[in-house]
Amino acid sequence: MINWLYGLVGEGPFPSMRAVVYRGILVVCIVLSTTIAIVDTVPDAWIGFEGIVSGAGGLFLVILSLDYILRLLVAWSQRAEGESGMAALAGYALSPYGIFDFLAVVPFLVGEATALMPHDGETVFGILRFLKLARYSPALETLGVVVLHELRPLLASLFIMLILAISASTVIYFVERAANPALASVPAAMWWAIVTLSTVGFGDVVPITPLGKLFGSVVAVLGLCMFALPASILASGFAEEMKRQNFVSTWHLVAKVPFFQRLQASQIAEIAGLLKLSRAIKGEVLMREGDTGECMYFIVSGQVEVKGKAGTFILKNGDFFGEIALIERCPRTATVKAVSRCQLLILDARDFHKFVAHDHALLEVIWETARSRMAQADKAHDAKEKEPV
Amino acid sequence: MINWLYGLVGEGPFPSMRAVVYRGILVVCIVLSTTIAIVDTVPDAWIGFEGIVSGAGGLFLVILSLDYILRLLVAWSQRAEGESGMAALAGYALSPYGIFDFLAVVPFLVGEATALMPHDGETVFGILRFLKLARYSPALETLGVVVLHELRPLLASLFIMLILAISASTVIYFVERAANPALASVPAAMWWAIVTLSTVGFGDVVPITPLGKLFGSVVAVLGLCMFALPASILASGFAEEMKRQNFVSTWHLVAKVPFFQRLQASQIAEIAGLLKLSRAIKGEVLMREGDTGECMYFIVSGQVEVKGKAGTFILKNGDFFGEIALIERCPRTATVKAVSRCQLLILDARDFHKFVAHDHALLEVIWETARSRMAQADKAHDAKEKEPV
Amino acid sequence: MINWLYGLVGEGPFPSMRAVVYRGILVVCIVLSTTIAIVDTVPDAWIGFEGIVSGAGGLFLVILSLDYILRLLVAWSQRAEGESGMAALAGYALSPYGIFDFLAVVPFLVGEATALMPHDGETVFGILRFLKLARYSPALETLGVVVLHELRPLLASLFIMLILAISASTVIYFVERAANPALASVPAAMWWAIVTLSTVGFGDVVPITPLGKLFGSVVAVLGLCMFALPASILASGFAEEMKRQNFVSTWHLVAKVPFFQRLQASQIAEIAGLLKLSRAIKGEVLMREGDTGECMYFIVSGQVEVKGKAGTFILKNGDFFGEIALIERCPRTATVKAVSRCQLLILDARDFHKFVAHDHALLEVIWETARSRMAQADKAHDAKEKEPV
Amino acid sequence: MINWLYGLVGEGPFPSMRAVVYRGILVVCIVLSTTIAIVDTVPDAWIGFEGIVSGAGGLFLVILSLDYILRLLVAWSQRAEGESGMAALAGYALSPYGIFDFLAVVPFLVGEATALMPHDGETVFGILRFLKLARYSPALETLGVVVLHELRPLLASLFIMLILAISASTVIYFVERAANPALASVPAAMWWAIVTLSTVGFGDVVPITPLGKLFGSVVAVLGLCMFALPASILASGFAEEMKRQNFVSTWHLVAKVPFFQRLQASQIAEIAGLLKLSRAIKGEVLMREGDTGECMYFIVSGQVEVKGKAGTFILKNGDFFGEIALIERCPRTATVKAVSRCQLLILDARDFHKFVAHDHALLEVIWETARSRMAQADKAHDAKEKEPV
Repeated sequence: MINWLYGLVGEGPFPSMRAVVYRGILVVCIVLSTTIAIVDTVPDAWIGFEGIVSGAGGLFLVILSLDYILRLLVAWSQRAEGESGMAALAGYALSPYGIFDFLAVVPFLVGEATALMPHDGETVFGILRFLKLARYSPALETLGVVVLHELRPLLASLFIMLILAISASTVIYFVERAANPALASVPAAMWWAIVTLSTVGFGDVVPITPLGKLFGSVVAVLGLCMFALPASILASGFAEEMKRQNFVSTWHLVAKVPFFQRLQASQIAEIAGLLKLSRAIKGEVLMREGDTGECMYFIVSGQVEVKGKAGTFILKNGDFFGEIALIERCPRTATVKAVSRCQLLILDARDFHKFVAHDHALLEVIWETARSRMAQADKAHDAKEKEPV
Repeated sequence: MINWLYGLVGEGPFPSMRAVVYRGILVVCIVLSTTIAIVDTVPDAWIGFEGIVSGAGGLFLVILSLDYILRLLVAWSQRAEGESGMAALAGYALSPYGIFDFLAVVPFLVGEATALMPHDGETVFGILRFLKLARYSPALETLGVVVLHELRPLLASLFIMLILAISASTVIYFVERAANPALASVPAAMWWAIVTLSTVGFGDVVPITPLGKLFGSVVAVLGLCMFALPASILASGFAEEMKRQNFVSTWHLVAKVPFFQRLQASQIAEIAGLLKLSRAIKGEVLMREGDTGECMYFIVSGQVEVKGKAGTFILKNGDFFGEIALIERCPRTATVKAVSRCQLLILDARDFHKFVAHDHALLEVIWETARSRMAQADKAHDAKEKEPV
Repeated sequence: MINWLYGLVGEGPFPSMRAVVYRGILVVCIVLSTTIAIVDTVPDAWIGFEGIVSGAGGLFLVILSLDYILRLLVAWSQRAEGESGMAALAGYALSPYGIFDFLAVVPFLVGEATALMPHDGETVFGILRFLKLARYSPALETLGVVVLHELRPLLASLFIMLILAISASTVIYFVERAANPALASVPAAMWWAIVTLSTVGFGDVVPITPLGKLFGSVVAVLGLCMFALPASILASGFAEEMKRQNFVSTWHLVAKVPFFQRLQASQIAEIAGLLKLSRAIKGEVLMREGDTGECMYFIVSGQVEVKGKAGTFILKNGDFFGEIALIERCPRTATVKAVSRCQLLILDARDFHKFVAHDHALLEVIWETARSRMAQADKAHDAKEKEPV
Repeated sequence: MINWLYGLVGEGPFPSMRAVVYRGILVVCIVLSTTIAIVDTVPDAWIGFEGIVSGAGGLFLVILSLDYILRLLVAWSQRAEGESGMAALAGYALSPYGIFDFLAVVPFLVGEATALMPHDGETVFGILRFLKLARYSPALETLGVVVLHELRPLLASLFIMLILAISASTVIYFVERAANPALASVPAAMWWAIVTLSTVGFGDVVPITPLGKLFGSVVAVLGLCMFALPASILASGFAEEMKRQNFVSTWHLVAKVPFFQRLQASQIAEIAGLLKLSRAIKGEVLMREGDTGECMYFIVSGQVEVKGKAGTFILKNGDFFGEIALIERCPRTATVKAVSRCQLLILDARDFHKFVAHDHALLEVIWETARSRMAQADKAHDAKEKEPV
């Protein structure tokens, strides 16, 4: 029973059914809970629904509290060998996710219990529950890594933007201060400068003298040019980091595919950069006979059913399929369906040829398999033709 | 007769004349039809033209209805062997394009017939006709593929944007709510936050306290940085997908050019990534004697006429031309004109040298052809010189 | 005399002094002329200066007219062999630049002569003179090439934007029309949609209902994502085209450097993609002793003076310098100054090593030259040391 | 004593403690000083704090003056051999940083002394102190290099933007001038055009006629497309320049690592492009046993302590570590901590395999070291197992 409970918070590539359901309930609770806290700031938003809303709020609080307790229990029970229970608890409680889980319920409960928390606190801690969702998205973590990695160029470009903003606001202040009460001090001008440089352009403060407009035009164009620097640094860093994460996860999987074990270390690294990781659920159709083939597949785990002219057979981890269409440039010769949950590595047509161009041994192996499969298909086909219809 | 009609909706790289005209009429009908539905929402827009507009609307409806019927007929008559007619009909009717064709006319006709459709319905279904244009642009399909392919990073960046928007609106709400009635609730603040973070900046809601403006500046800069993530993911995915589509279509054409059949599979893959697909209509001049040469051409289908010092001759599918200027670094030595519709594969100067650097055999072949052509040209030239003028 | 005049409009990498001065005068005329036409639309802008402005305007008109006549004469006199004078004239007059030159003066003169041109015409044709500047910037031509080359993806992304704009305006119209008179028709809503999707956000039309704001937020984010497509296509196409132009111009120069003639065609293509073209005027210092060296130079034309420990010597076209710092990773060992106008090809440290990694023969040649130069320097240095101080 | 003072302004990769503290004090002085000058333009901003602010202002002035004197002294005393003291002084005083230091204090002091400076001058020179910060950020210098390097494409795109702005303002002027007093002259229309094309969109001037709005939509979309050109040129140039700077600084360090001295020049260039420079302070943990290993380290200077199953040992400059996890694809087998300040070169997993794929000799060396270390670890492990517990 306790293990069943612990399984609820399990994660990994293939979570159990109950973990999926539990995650779904949690996400709904978190989203609704945050929504209630947000809408709560609109006066008279709940007229006629006070009861339902407050009931739902209480329910969500209970669920999120139980979730926190459950995660504490799991941390305690699944501590590493030799680790003390308290250390394991602290390890979880002080991790970012542990802190998010804490903030979602404890301040609220304490506030209610002591009747000390003002209404604002309820709003803030209600909205903060949203952070619990971070567990289900690697995006924030990735972004953090990128910001750390690109800190130097980011700071450099922020410094340029700061100098631009200060210069622009000083100049516009001297140009406009007599005519324009909205630009009568440098701080006020800086609000205008940043709003213009970032191309937001609210329009609440606008230069009104001809000279001010001329200078404002220059600032608008400069902003466009310079303020793209941090955006571009972050965007390319983000893309690079996602590629790197794909490489690392693929690299560890490649080692599990027997087929690749004949490759040298350096070849594995090369192919790991070309492969893309994919998952299939039971029953998913991976390719259809007659479609144009643009990639081949390696099975890391799970089983697929291949149904073609040569009959139906099962492939399992370590096998590959889809290579005939790549080598022969013909449509798919079989339909492939996952018969269990599968982890697959996908190799694109372009990358396939790029790789085998340097490594004829690998091509030979794939080629032989393909040929034997095609021979089988032809034989089956011939046999069928000969069958009395 | 019926085949002539079926030819109207034919597509492919080289549609017949009647298909081109039919497509033109349809596009005009769709665009005007949508325009009428849009302008119709302006009160008194048609004063004095009611008759014309309603007549045109009726005519367009008839044309689009006939188009739908025609497409149904074509789907029925061109069903694959062994497929039942109903299945073929359903296959078309339930495809996205079939649904767009349906929405363009049927609700309208039913509404008119039953006099049940309100005026709003007419507006909506009139505007929806625009979707029929999707058939003539691969853009929406490409975008769909990109969104599917990049779903993970897109969702990741949307999650970051959501967290930013919620955080920004919560903070600005607490900072401004006392002073600024436009920011007196978190939902109202969220409108401001998204408008600012996306750098749209309407200016209908603007922070007015100094602290609010300071924080607003930070939000504007953060928005600039973070909201570029999904744009950049989509843009690079779109570019990548267009390149991939070019590779796939080129790859299948390369196999049709006899010249490339001496290449190994891996070389074909390499050159397929370098070639660009192009089409020429009858009479188009592909290169002019004396121009600087920056690419060579392979003919997939069709014929070209080469007019140079060596006289005039015809090249057809499988041949190539334009290689002399690439090898010798001299201006074009002949003028080349398409004498029929041609599909061509273009190889850039840079890519040409990149490729032959690894593959001297190919260079030899091109070189020999070039040399024999140049010898021919010299001989012709000498002959001319000797001619009594 | 007439040739002296013709030299005024000469162009090319190294224009004569009088051509430079003439170009300067023309640019000033064009810019001032356009500025006068622009400012002329401001009521009472010239009060007190009418005389000067009208005098200047007349002067500019005379200069631009003479320029047009001069260019016609040049076109006539410099016609290709066998071309008729009229064909040469028409060739110039109907080229884009010829049309810009024509528009700059003829309509104005005809208007003045016949007193038929309204004031608006003067404004338009005055401003149009600006187009004459296009001759001095390859940007418009490059942009044209890019737009043509990327026409398919550009149209594809414009189609997506159009569908987005139509959908957004239809939805916001139905959501807001009752409450918001500014969104009471689809065309009005389309103005809002495009202003929002392009992230301009004027704020003259803004959704006011909660549902409208929610939908408006979605539109703002969608706009940010989708409207970056054409910008990104154009930007990367522009960068690619500029690189290609650099390759083509470098490629033709590489053939002129004797040093490179020992390379094979494919190697020339490779190095042409790495070299950057640069120009130096007489007296320009190209490198200074003691600086960190990050590139080496090949001289295409002109002469440089090398002043180092080994004494002073002259290098001319076909020679190279700056290689010691790249091979030895030490600071520059000499100061190099251009003693005439030079065309140089620059090879970056990174690219240098990338290239010699594949081509040891080239490295050997550069290495030997470097060694003999260093030996010379050491000998000179030793000689100096031995000198009685 | 005087050397201790000179050490205050020392820079370089590892500044002394007093230099770090001095830099910190200076930065605080500069930032506060600029902030005071900015806030000073707000009327009545300091009511009740006049004394403190004016005292602080005086203190900052003294500190910045002393800093300027100190830097002059350092320039004098650290002049190169054979350089005159005055030349060294002038060299500093006329460098950009010397001018920034001068502007920060001298005009102020002179103004105060002569009582001639107006209040505006105080504001300007107070804000200008901000430029002193440029010394601590290479960003401005990098940006300058990029702008110089990309000047041609930048000017080209600015020219396109100018033509667009002039055309857009001329057209909107003719369309709107009758109806819209805000667009009654071309200069006024140009303000609108630039604000729209740069997607700032203040909303102070907006087209009001249907035709004006239609054209305004086109301008908004064109702006989005074209105005991304300079942003993209600058952003990619900035990224390229930062990579180049990394290459140059790494390249010089690689030569200092004995391990790399067995490589050929071209290999050093290749690996220098892959390595990333990093620094560690004393006590920093570089890797932890059990973590996933994604890179290996080369020590340029400093010492690290490796604590693993094989016991604890010290590695110093020339050594490398972290290679086992890369070769064996297993978690880290040891914890590594810096025991002094270290300069490290980091080689990513992907780049490691890319490099060793071409250079098996290097892999052999790393491999042997790894194997001997693992053997050591196993021996130690076995020894431990045999220990009586």
